[in-house]
Amino acid sequence: MSLEREVTRIVGEEWVITGQERELFSYPAFLPLKVTPPLVVLPGSEEEVIEIVKLFKSKRTKYLIRGAGTSLSGSTTPTQGEVVISLNRLNKVFYTQGLEITVGPGIANLHIGKFIDSDVFYAPDPSSYVVSSIGGNISHDSGGMHTPKYGTTFNSVVSLRVLLPDGSVEDLNGRNLDPLPLFVGSEGTLGIILRATLRLFPKPGISRTLLAAFDNVEDAGKAVVEIYKVGVTPASLEFMDKPSIIAVENTQYKANYPEAEAILLIELDGNSIQVEEEMRRSKLAISKCNGRFYEPTSEEEKTRWWIGRKGAFPSFAYYSPSYLTLDANVPRSSLPKILEFTYAIGRKYSLPVANCFHAGDGTLHPLIGFNSEDRENTINAIKAAEEITYYALTLGGVPSGEHGIGIEKLKFMPVYYSSEDIEVMRRIKESFDPEFILNPCKLIPPKEKECIAVGEIHKHLMEVD
Amino acid sequence: MSLEREVTRIVGEEWVITGQERELFSYPAFLPLKVTPPLVVLPGSEEEVIEIVKLFKSKRTKYLIRGAGTSLSGSTTPTQGEVVISLNRLNKVFYTQGLEITVGPGIANLHIGKFIDSDVFYAPDPSSYVVSSIGGNISHDSGGMHTPKYGTTFNSVVSLRVLLPDGSVEDLNGRNLDPLPLFVGSEGTLGIILRATLRLFPKPGISRTLLAAFDNVEDAGKAVVEIYKVGVTPASLEFMDKPSIIAVENTQYKANYPEAEAILLIELDGNSIQVEEEMRRSKLAISKCNGRFYEPTSEEEKTRWWIGRKGAFPSFAYYSPSYLTLDANVPRSSLPKILEFTYAIGRKYSLPVANCFHAGDGTLHPLIGFNSEDRENTINAIKAAEEITYYALTLGGVPSGEHGIGIEKLKFMPVYYSSEDIEVMRRIKESFDPEFILNPCKLIPPKEKECIAVGEIHKHLMEVD
Repeated sequence: MSLEREVTRIVGEEWVITGQERELFSYPAFLPLKVTPPLVVLPGSEEEVIEIVKLFKSKRTKYLIRGAGTSLSGSTTPTQGEVVISLNRLNKVFYTQGLEITVGPGIANLHIGKFIDSDVFYAPDPSSYVVSSIGGNISHDSGGMHTPKYGTTFNSVVSLRVLLPDGSVEDLNGRNLDPLPLFVGSEGTLGIILRATLRLFPKPGISRTLLAAFDNVEDAGKAVVEIYKVGVTPASLEFMDKPSIIAVENTQYKANYPEAEAILLIELDGNSIQVEEEMRRSKLAISKCNGRFYEPTSEEEKTRWWIGRKGAFPSFAYYSPSYLTLDANVPRSSLPKILEFTYAIGRKYSLPVANCFHAGDGTLHPLIGFNSEDRENTINAIKAAEEITYYALTLGGVPSGEHGIGIEKLKFMPVYYSSEDIEVMRRIKESFDPEFILNPCKLIPPKEKECIAVGEIHKHLMEVD
Repeated sequence: MSLEREVTRIVGEEWVITGQERELFSYPAFLPLKVTPPLVVLPGSEEEVIEIVKLFKSKRTKYLIRGAGTSLSGSTTPTQGEVVISLNRLNKVFYTQGLEITVGPGIANLHIGKFIDSDVFYAPDPSSYVVSSIGGNISHDSGGMHTPKYGTTFNSVVSLRVLLPDGSVEDLNGRNLDPLPLFVGSEGTLGIILRATLRLFPKPGISRTLLAAFDNVEDAGKAVVEIYKVGVTPASLEFMDKPSIIAVENTQYKANYPEAEAILLIELDGNSIQVEEEMRRSKLAISKCNGRFYEPTSEEEKTRWWIGRKGAFPSFAYYSPSYLTLDANVPRSSLPKILEFTYAIGRKYSLPVANCFHAGDGTLHPLIGFNSEDRENTINAIKAAEEITYYALTLGGVPSGEHGIGIEKLKFMPVYYSSEDIEVMRRIKESFDPEFILNPCKLIPPKEKECIAVGEIHKHLMEVD
């Protein structure tokens, strides 16, 4: 029986995509590389996923798992002819009580909020939270604006039910030699998340917003360090440079920020006495770094400021139809240096560059504009991105703070890790997926001839000569 | 050349132990089981450790790693004829700046404080901190009194340099598929920690102590939950029951605690305004649960109270020459139930039982007295410990909160984990140590005939029939 007929038998005709619509699954939010999968299958239950995986195992069929397709590093582009298993339909809420909720991997981050008590909240909020799936968030250990105080997705995962490539189902809790911490951030290379139990935090008593405006990026960078030095742990600490502000002010996300070369948007939360004290200290820190501070005069203004920040990425369309978003993570003290570097690189390649990011944890998000219909322009954007990532590494940074390695940063793995380190990663991968049929040729640098390069851009990304 | 001569060539005669002194390495703090190793070697540098491991690999010599020997679960008892590699001499401080310090694995937890600025501190403080080594702390993910606010050792590990059983050296940072989180808590079964970079926290502005006294353990248990409910995150939240108090008051750790059936010892830290507010809320919570609260009237009284708590374990000698210390971790709301159960079990086996533990994170420490010279008494203590651990599991607990599985809790692994879970652990172990020569027969339940049982107690612990 053909593979198509067999998966149809498992999930029903309606949930197997073979025609033109497959192209919708040819790439995630990372745009430079599109590869149409031979087949897309959308199982509707854990049992169906298990049956599909067992079938693929018996036939040695390569496959990859897809959530909402918001990956910025290409982790769901099926470069090796993989069948795509989309988990969108596995979006059930199984259980919620107190500070925990158990959900399927396909549920959107935003929707968690609809199923929990009003006095608790789910902390991780990547920019894509309106659509991105919990399975994808876990697989990329996604961060977001709440990272400085509440940590990344890792800190909000209590336990996982996973399906391994051999067809066995495991309940992971991270104790002893249990591999839960490996699954978080493994970019879908070790197994399939069937169910996740997530930690909820009690909503803070109050939260207040403070905006700091600076005449140059150096002062803004210094203020980030100073705020921590005076003992404040902000719930959010977001940075926007002038190009980001201009973009926002020229789109529907218009926020009416004060005139500045760079701004910090700060959220403080906790009980009222504590927030009052953190407010006082933050203002002192901002003044010390030559900043001006502003408090919103109305609830409406506060909301507008945050919508502006959340709209900074889509606003980048003001400069360019497509953009790459880097996420090198550097020590907070290096922020001024790398910002200057990103502008210089933008000038070098004549590409628009803006910086808008989570300053609290040092995760940089330089945006580099390009036109994905123009081959040379696309290659230039990739080269610009690579120069910035290399520079971040020389400052003691890491290649990826939260978007993942995927295809985009494969070539930085051997720069950052030793060959022995990578060998250990391969052995771990092998111990879960001995035949490399699950999401191959991502995250771990492939050996020679192990992977096919599909076209010039992929070749460049893999550095296969 | 004999193994003894070869290791002597590597480390020098002075650092190879072959005589009677080997018995000092026959057991850790977990007393029921002693097995003398054939050989003990104490390398003095990373290079020597590497050479030894390569030698043992080539000869398939079984070995285990030992720090200070304070394990409470038997993780350094050489049951399978292993050579012991003691890392006590690898106690260098390589580097310290700001909020980080890099050290060798042999340094005692206490000594970290001598090498860092006076405005920072290393948070994890297991009861054994005066002698226990950082390598052992990391391998067991040790907790301590500061866990409620600062987390376990896991939260204080920035990066590790490890030596794998194949002789390769890796620098681990926990990103991507890097196995750093697996190493923390792996009880020395995956590789050898050569160097650790640890996170330091800024010292809180002030810290204050509050003592709460209760007429019964239920109220004390409820107060633990209530303190969190009112929004307080204590730096420490310690529980002592009447038997623990009596033991302390009858030894050199005498603290003059107020008359009570149970007390909570609470530390609050932060800036003065915040601590003031947490103090106020904690007092309300204690009163609500029928407790009386006390503040120390002098610095001397404060110190005495904490010395009393730290002396609670050694004070147990008041009842019994030896004791087992359990560390089942239960949901905070189940504390009253399991406390009652421990007393019932003590009565059943006619063994002294006391409870003194980190209430903040639900890690229970029932102490069960026994005489290690009396075989039947020893077996009874182990059986009592097992009944308590089983009961903790039925309450939603885990077998080990911080002491590790080692040999002691091997038989609880199949109760807590599925056979598939354990199979995954084995595969992970194999991917690092394919021949099972590093610290075999611990943590992961062995297959039939894979391990030798040395005597009745070991047989009972392994449930090998």
